[in-house]
Amino acid sequence: MKPLSSPILDEKLKEHVLIQYLSRFTTVSEEDAHILLENLDVRSFKKGDILLREGQISPWCYFVLKGCVRQYYLVDGEEKTTNFFTEGTPINLYEGFYKNAPAKYYLVCLEDSYLSVGPPEDTSHPLATKFEPVCRLSSQEESSKYQEMLAMYMIHSPEERYLNLLKTRPDLIERVPQYYLASYLGVTPETLSRIRKRIMSK
Amino acid sequence: MKPLSSPILDEKLKEHVLIQYLSRFTTVSEEDAHILLENLDVRSFKKGDILLREGQISPWCYFVLKGCVRQYYLVDGEEKTTNFFTEGTPINLYEGFYKNAPAKYYLVCLEDSYLSVGPPEDTSHPLATKFEPVCRLSSQEESSKYQEMLAMYMIHSPEERYLNLLKTRPDLIERVPQYYLASYLGVTPETLSRIRKRIMSK
Repeated sequence: MKPLSSPILDEKLKEHVLIQYLSRFTTVSEEDAHILLENLDVRSFKKGDILLREGQISPWCYFVLKGCVRQYYLVDGEEKTTNFFTEGTPINLYEGFYKNAPAKYYLVCLEDSYLSVGPPEDTSHPLATKFEPVCRLSSQEESSKYQEMLAMYMIHSPEERYLNLLKTRPDLIERVPQYYLASYLGVTPETLSRIRKRIMSK
Repeated sequence: MKPLSSPILDEKLKEHVLIQYLSRFTTVSEEDAHILLENLDVRSFKKGDILLREGQISPWCYFVLKGCVRQYYLVDGEEKTTNFFTEGTPINLYEGFYKNAPAKYYLVCLEDSYLSVGPPEDTSHPLATKFEPVCRLSSQEESSKYQEMLAMYMIHSPEERYLNLLKTRPDLIERVPQYYLASYLGVTPETLSRIRKRIMSK
């Protein structure tokens, strides 16, 4: 992990993404924002850097300030893409930290990325107590989001999943290579290509 | 919603399911357990009772003490089953409570059920502050669980999903009617029947 090459860019970026995220759950005073940003451990990663491998136990959680992290499972030698974490998204590695359970999947940077890195429960943080309810709310929102994503995946056809992605995460369509997107939607790249053509011709 | 007919059964049940659940995240003293159980609003529901309809905003969260609640989406007049909440499971209705968003799905009791009912954030509860980290941990666990359920649904075939269910939630196979189970696994009842025969003959 390399130190940041541009601390000035980074300050703006941290403030923008992290404080905007936290402001969804609480009022962040200027003083709180200052303490939070001072205590944030931000690291830069290169496209292709692997954050976690199957079988490893991660002592960290991440929060994406810039970039994109792909989650995949290796099934009979084939990578099955199951998630993309982009700006303003926590990567919660609860199973590793709290249950000491080895990961069943891989996390790899799909782009050069800036991530804040830390233990999921840092009681030494000066705002730990104050921000405990924020962490609870954020986790509740994440839980609710994944429940809905699961339900949507269950009830939708691959074409509907693609249309839903266009509506809810249009940036992914632009920034993610076709074969990863196809895997994520549960189809072959050829089928995804046909789906796109069908939609474009409508 | 009806008052409980058997408070004695209920005390045992509450203690068993709720305290066991909370003990996964913290040490629950006898005094804490007493306060928690005293303040719990437990209600009984009949098989078929609807807890939430599409379009409604739920002011409540639930925790299943006994029974089974089915979640389904109504798609072109057809019920698509997307979740079963059983003993020791929170039913988190974050979107309704915090975002005032109408539900996109239905929640219906699949069996006679005992549920604890309450607002998701009850600051007047005598143990609210003490149990804030527990609620955060519980939500993080839920979030992690649904992320894994989503990934498993994505990477598995319907037959693998059924085998996974046999391993992780064998009770569902026994207590849930075939057509709901088929819907949950993303197949027709006929296909589920073929999957079961194939597995039994192995």
